[in-house]
Amino acid sequence: MDQFYVGLGAVIVRDGKILILKRSPDKDFAPNRWEIVTGRLERGEGPAAGILREIEEETKLKAEVIMPVNTEFFYRGSEEFPMVFINFWCSYIDGEVEMSWEHTEYQWIFMQDALQNPELKTFHESLSRIMALKPHLPDGFSFG
Amino acid sequence: MDQFYVGLGAVIVRDGKILILKRSPDKDFAPNRWEIVTGRLERGEGPAAGILREIEEETKLKAEVIMPVNTEFFYRGSEEFPMVFINFWCSYIDGEVEMSWEHTEYQWIFMQDALQNPELKTFHESLSRIMALKPHLPDGFSFG
Repeated sequence: MDQFYVGLGAVIVRDGKILILKRSPDKDFAPNRWEIVTGRLERGEGPAAGILREIEEETKLKAEVIMPVNTEFFYRGSEEFPMVFINFWCSYIDGEVEMSWEHTEYQWIFMQDALQNPELKTFHESLSRIMALKPHLPDGFSFG
Repeated sequence: MDQFYVGLGAVIVRDGKILILKRSPDKDFAPNRWEIVTGRLERGEGPAAGILREIEEETKLKAEVIMPVNTEFFYRGSEEFPMVFINFWCSYIDGEVEMSWEHTEYQWIFMQDALQNPELKTFHESLSRIMALKPHLPDGFSFG
């Protein structure tokens, strides 16, 4: 039976903008590319808890998970690395970004601008989904 | 690095009711228990495509995926079986249920009644989330 690595992504929304970060040149995969907060699920943690851990590790921000918005499968580099990726819509709560070694720059940009950035192409579907959902849901919507 | 089995679930909604099925007595895990459509992701397919394949295999229904609503981690029986589970909100399109060997009975029941059924406890969070989202979204909402 097939097993997978599980990747997690966080679209962190703050006043209509989202957080993007530039991957360190030391990364084995996609160095120097702009991305959102991403990371790998560890055994024993739920995916939503996993992405909150990654947000803490990579930004020190306090955030909350609203919901998963998109799931994908791809081979990360080679067929030996089958990966399922879960992107979460998250909401900024508090704090200012303090980057780890994994990134060299960060920006808060409008979702519409993120959709124009080809380096963020992997995350465009998740962004589009959040933009489609957001107008329908009350401000601060969460599953509580 | 940790790898996982990836389970998929479908809450298929039809006129305010959802489809539940009784697992066959031949199942190694949770025989005779009521559940929703579930299955295992296979290499090379996206999770949303995977759950549509499982719906076809287990019910022959035509359905569409609206969105992932909940993700979980658990050990399926033993620690050798770490599993990430993704539950999808799906919408019935067409057809009548034709069960496979995996199930012996099926019912369409109101979501509120499903929430009262302890055999469906694993899926209560996903059901609650759909019930929280549904009133806000236009009928037939999809990401297109």
